[in-house]
Amino acid sequence: MFAPLQNDTFLRACLRQATDHTPIWLMRQAGRYLPEYRATRARAGSFMGLATNPGYATEVTLQPLERYPLDAAILFSDILTVPDAMGLGLSFALGEGPRFATPVRDEAAVARLAVPDMDKLRYVFDAVTSIRRALNGRVPLIGFSGSPWTLACYMVEGQGSDDYRLVKSMLYGRPDLMHRMLQINATAVAVYLNAQIEAGAQAVMLFDSWGGVLADGAFQEFSLAYTQQVLGQLKTEHDGQRIPRIVFTKGGGIWLEQMAGLDCEVLGLDWTVNLGQARARVGDRKALQGNLDPNVLFAPPAAIATEVRRVLDSFGTPHQGAGQGPTQIFNLGHGISQHTPPEHVSALVETVHSHSRLQRS
Amino acid sequence: MFAPLQNDTFLRACLRQATDHTPIWLMRQAGRYLPEYRATRARAGSFMGLATNPGYATEVTLQPLERYPLDAAILFSDILTVPDAMGLGLSFALGEGPRFATPVRDEAAVARLAVPDMDKLRYVFDAVTSIRRALNGRVPLIGFSGSPWTLACYMVEGQGSDDYRLVKSMLYGRPDLMHRMLQINATAVAVYLNAQIEAGAQAVMLFDSWGGVLADGAFQEFSLAYTQQVLGQLKTEHDGQRIPRIVFTKGGGIWLEQMAGLDCEVLGLDWTVNLGQARARVGDRKALQGNLDPNVLFAPPAAIATEVRRVLDSFGTPHQGAGQGPTQIFNLGHGISQHTPPEHVSALVETVHSHSRLQRS
Repeated sequence: MFAPLQNDTFLRACLRQATDHTPIWLMRQAGRYLPEYRATRARAGSFMGLATNPGYATEVTLQPLERYPLDAAILFSDILTVPDAMGLGLSFALGEGPRFATPVRDEAAVARLAVPDMDKLRYVFDAVTSIRRALNGRVPLIGFSGSPWTLACYMVEGQGSDDYRLVKSMLYGRPDLMHRMLQINATAVAVYLNAQIEAGAQAVMLFDSWGGVLADGAFQEFSLAYTQQVLGQLKTEHDGQRIPRIVFTKGGGIWLEQMAGLDCEVLGLDWTVNLGQARARVGDRKALQGNLDPNVLFAPPAAIATEVRRVLDSFGTPHQGAGQGPTQIFNLGHGISQHTPPEHVSALVETVHSHSRLQRS
Repeated sequence: MFAPLQNDTFLRACLRQATDHTPIWLMRQAGRYLPEYRATRARAGSFMGLATNPGYATEVTLQPLERYPLDAAILFSDILTVPDAMGLGLSFALGEGPRFATPVRDEAAVARLAVPDMDKLRYVFDAVTSIRRALNGRVPLIGFSGSPWTLACYMVEGQGSDDYRLVKSMLYGRPDLMHRMLQINATAVAVYLNAQIEAGAQAVMLFDSWGGVLADGAFQEFSLAYTQQVLGQLKTEHDGQRIPRIVFTKGGGIWLEQMAGLDCEVLGLDWTVNLGQARARVGDRKALQGNLDPNVLFAPPAAIATEVRRVLDSFGTPHQGAGQGPTQIFNLGHGISQHTPPEHVSALVETVHSHSRLQRS
């Protein structure tokens, strides 16, 4: 059904197999820092117009691959598609973040929640298939979802937050409601990701973007446990191919030993984590993805190259030869900034490829 | 000059000496959640009117002590007094955070920076002496400053930030300018804290509120090194009394082993850190301060008590008997929210005192 894969570097690194260079892709690589993205978005009329149209989603997903020799593509979509399909009414006001018309703040609202009909998310699965076809085997396609906890943050707060007061008030005051919501989210996310896999996603990633705002103890109970529940329900093979699973908890570096026990292949790390120390703490169980500070990309290219080499060297020499061993997938520690000069991304990708080849020579 | 201290529980715990209960104070304990604070602020006309008037500063510093049996007072002031004295023009727009009229964004602006004349900060030292007198020996008084890096964040950004793009652009693009600014900040902060000690502060705290946004490597070079530089210049005794030094890096839990090497008595921890694990990582070198999530205070009192006991139990039984051993100073993991119901703070303080006595019985 799909063309054979020509560059399997990313998938091999996910499975802790040797590659001739360290693969790189960037969180939010299809985005506002690219003028061609802004042009497509203008034609689409709005962010949701872009995200819900498989043609536009395909177009913007492929844009960064035309500019840079990236080793993977990631579905262009939003992390809040699932609660939107639950009927919470997602919108994006101009120049602002996402907002839900009907946030979930009391027992009655939680009682009304249910795993959404996946037909309402057909546009996402259609985009996955369309992108996979358009990629034509160039690089693998990553599908994704927000984690149950991260979705719950937005569902309760109704928008971004700087203190998470409403969602944590529910967590500490009515943990029963929070658990009910997370249970529904976990089931919905698993069904959603499995449908992306069936539609053509060759790896999947859970963005636990707000796991790091939780207290020790609460993180394990309200984020990690539901991430694990999702992972346990995911297809690990499709069409005879392994489907690697990546978990990224921003601010989760302090809980690495516990995250190492997750049933996934890759752990994403933000820039606060030293990759060499992370290797030692995680042991021979996971590939590591990350972790350059996106703000490095505002420095001149020579300084970018220095910082990129520092991150690669902090990981150390990746596995070479047969079997499995330590591998890194290069990425930023968070999404790329909309203010990034596009030519600086060239310096980043070039240095990752060249220096990581040197590390192996 | 000052009345003898009646409650030395906080100071003893800072020095890792046994106490009959775990002392507690709260970051931002004199603040907007208290109606009496809002009344004083209304009389003062503005936040800066409040902070620069020793009479008002004394009044609000003592307000939480009238309501709760807290074990320490902390100077009411702002962390940006030092850059304001450097001439950057601090102001607080209604309902917004701090803002500098002339942020420091280029080589010329950095070249103009100098350690300010401490006479411009006389209102702070006067407030310290006035508060110490008004306390009349009830509990010790903590002085404080922002860390060199945290001050630099505000000085470059000119206001709060959610991505620290400007300050990190300077850090990665012109590290020489960043080091020059941090060097000036470190000297200024040390002089400032020593003047607070001479004015009557019985302990001092460095708020490295934004250290946790730095990448591994950058944290050590641009935050930790300058915190250490400040610490090395501080008076460790005054009037025959030890002056404990507290360092709090929000989001710094991942670097605890390195922070354990700082020349200070106490490390402050945010709520992501497990106190038992922190004890093991820090070893027998520091008292630990923290670390309840401030959002716990939105739950009903019974749930607050449960979470407080969990935090105390995660630390384990504190040192008893002669000599030094592991001690905790209870606190929140960050400043108390302005939305906190004041009566919930009573439940917090009561539970810390009663449960920590039980732990010792």
